[in-house]
Amino acid sequence: MRTKNAFYAQSGGVTSVINASACGVIETARKHPDKIGTVYAGLNGIIGALTEDLIDTSAESTENIAALRNTPSGAFGSCRFKLKSLEDNRREYERLIEVFKAHNIGYFFYNGGGDSADTCYKVSQLSEKMGFPVQAIHIPKTVDNDLPITDNCPGFGSVAKYIAVSALEASFDVRSMAKTSTKVFVLEVMGRHAGWIAAAGGLIGDYDIPVLVLFPEVNFNQEKFIATVKNLVETHGYCTIVVSEGAKYADGTFLAEQGSRDSFGHAQLGGVAPVVANMVKQSLGYKFHWAVADYLQRAARHLASRSDVEQAYALGKVSVELAIEGKNSIMPTINRISSSPYQWEIGSADLADVANVEKMMPAEFISADGFGITEACKEYLYPLIEGESYPEYDERGMPKYIVLDNPQIDKKLGAFEL
Amino acid sequence: MRTKNAFYAQSGGVTSVINASACGVIETARKHPDKIGTVYAGLNGIIGALTEDLIDTSAESTENIAALRNTPSGAFGSCRFKLKSLEDNRREYERLIEVFKAHNIGYFFYNGGGDSADTCYKVSQLSEKMGFPVQAIHIPKTVDNDLPITDNCPGFGSVAKYIAVSALEASFDVRSMAKTSTKVFVLEVMGRHAGWIAAAGGLIGDYDIPVLVLFPEVNFNQEKFIATVKNLVETHGYCTIVVSEGAKYADGTFLAEQGSRDSFGHAQLGGVAPVVANMVKQSLGYKFHWAVADYLQRAARHLASRSDVEQAYALGKVSVELAIEGKNSIMPTINRISSSPYQWEIGSADLADVANVEKMMPAEFISADGFGITEACKEYLYPLIEGESYPEYDERGMPKYIVLDNPQIDKKLGAFEL
Repeated sequence: MRTKNAFYAQSGGVTSVINASACGVIETARKHPDKIGTVYAGLNGIIGALTEDLIDTSAESTENIAALRNTPSGAFGSCRFKLKSLEDNRREYERLIEVFKAHNIGYFFYNGGGDSADTCYKVSQLSEKMGFPVQAIHIPKTVDNDLPITDNCPGFGSVAKYIAVSALEASFDVRSMAKTSTKVFVLEVMGRHAGWIAAAGGLIGDYDIPVLVLFPEVNFNQEKFIATVKNLVETHGYCTIVVSEGAKYADGTFLAEQGSRDSFGHAQLGGVAPVVANMVKQSLGYKFHWAVADYLQRAARHLASRSDVEQAYALGKVSVELAIEGKNSIMPTINRISSSPYQWEIGSADLADVANVEKMMPAEFISADGFGITEACKEYLYPLIEGESYPEYDERGMPKYIVLDNPQIDKKLGAFEL
Repeated sequence: MRTKNAFYAQSGGVTSVINASACGVIETARKHPDKIGTVYAGLNGIIGALTEDLIDTSAESTENIAALRNTPSGAFGSCRFKLKSLEDNRREYERLIEVFKAHNIGYFFYNGGGDSADTCYKVSQLSEKMGFPVQAIHIPKTVDNDLPITDNCPGFGSVAKYIAVSALEASFDVRSMAKTSTKVFVLEVMGRHAGWIAAAGGLIGDYDIPVLVLFPEVNFNQEKFIATVKNLVETHGYCTIVVSEGAKYADGTFLAEQGSRDSFGHAQLGGVAPVVANMVKQSLGYKFHWAVADYLQRAARHLASRSDVEQAYALGKVSVELAIEGKNSIMPTINRISSSPYQWEIGSADLADVANVEKMMPAEFISADGFGITEACKEYLYPLIEGESYPEYDERGMPKYIVLDNPQIDKKLGAFEL
């Protein structure tokens, strides 16, 4: 039997460390040429497999692959494309297997969040039935930190560090200005369903900053919120508000949806920060500033967490090792041994247990008033932002991020309509 | 005659390196105890001088003062408080001199932008007339980079680096996602009157990113803008737009003012990024993301430019040396000797020539189509973002920024109504 090739794809929103996982996969596969032939990467994620747009990563130099470890974003392109259920669209799954068969691909490494864990699981099941068994390994990745079983998800630690540091720096700024100018600073962060990223903003409470966090998990109560802001500003002279994009009222309406309109009367998209800031202004009259971090937070490789980079790489590496051991339909996990000093090891979970389960913030991580984080939450978060891992910079002062050539191999099959 | 004391105050919007100037002032003054007694800092800037709230910096340890070099924000507090003209409010100027006299202050170091240069100039003139001559030295500081004579202003280089790196990282992210998701990313940056900060975003054009910059200096033409965005996205699959908060139409109306309203019908404050993003969505239908960097950009000491930190410190240091040499009513400047390799030296300018002059982007720095920067502009900008200067981090992964105790000395005068 010819040595099987591998397929690797990036899925969903990218992070500052997903390429570190890609680096771990490719570098490790290259160490086992007897077991794994070429690693093909999907151009724009799983779409590349469907359309047979396969990137030949063996064309890239050792140096370029190593540089992936320090480059944010998805080097091969990602996509927001969820395969439908097997019943609704068996055709897509069958096409994947056909493409894998045509290119002798026996290993499927899928780097993503909950949806891709589900796809990965189905590919494993169906390939067996179709007589071309593919070992499917899911490499966890999501800034939302909402995958089950694993203690944390690669991508999250770096966003958490970026938000904690940025909120600290901006709060120092506001404190300097509060006497005659800005008294309230609002920072909007990602996390539509789970408040993990917002929680990281709560860490600055340990650095003498009056901070208030609005979680998606806690129904927004405007009266209580305004009273808390008033109290913080009267006590400290200023305050910082970290608000999750997913903050919502008890009826499920997002704060961001509460009807800001442009000059044409169109509902304006996005932006819970200005909504919250204007609410404070109207109730209390305080001068405010607001920021929306958006992609800056998940792309900020310049301030990545060292533990996050190491884990992202390790999970890519171990995925290949698990595949070589013959494992299938699993996801390697981070298991925490201790928080202080931080110690972790790699474990694994069956994909059947991972697919379509979301891990929210546990109630014991949110303070009694709903506006902060507990000591237990801090103990959980600090290790994930531990250490720095700077990219190199060129002589002009810009980071040396790699852009790969991404040469594609010749197609063997007919076209496929997405 | 007793050795004269010094007064130091921070003015206007703070930066990630204004404390490096404070560090330069205090460390240098401490080396000349025969010439300069105590350095008093104004609590919340010039207001502290008016209300006689003077911080005794001699109470701080050598280590704490050294830590200022790596701490963003204004360690003694700043303020937005412009003294009126001498004719309109001679009382305030006279009070300043009274306070200086009461505390034997013969040196006035004022760290700020254009307004504070003006105040500094007037204090120097009036103190002479009032028979208690004070040597007034203005230490330049402004992220807006709009002071005349000096090649650049401390604070700007670090913001420029932050914006260039962040725009690059977010653009990598968008490129990864563009196939099925976000095609246009809009980043709003500071600079109400001058486009220097926006120009820094234009540097990413050198890193293969399709980028379009909207300057306050160029009247916004929606039709031309939309056509350019369309062309970039059709050619590259995506594009990044860096927009200055001060972008405006030919009639002087800010884009940010174009009437977005909240659910109560109140005009919503701030946010040109969502306005521009929605404009693209409505004309071209592209999926977008937008970010507003706001205070994050000017507080981001974690990504400061090394040349900026060194210059901010050097200007603080040389201000004290100039004072000791007997100079008065001047501002030390950065004079560029060469761009490549970057070489600079300290010069000085008379405050009479600095006060109330704004330096805009020269026309030759903006590309012919008005949406980008020229090679001359790049040659100007790169040296200013050259090198990194990281703060130390604690074992939990957060930067070690110093918070001073700021003990105040006893008051000798009666209260003063602001």
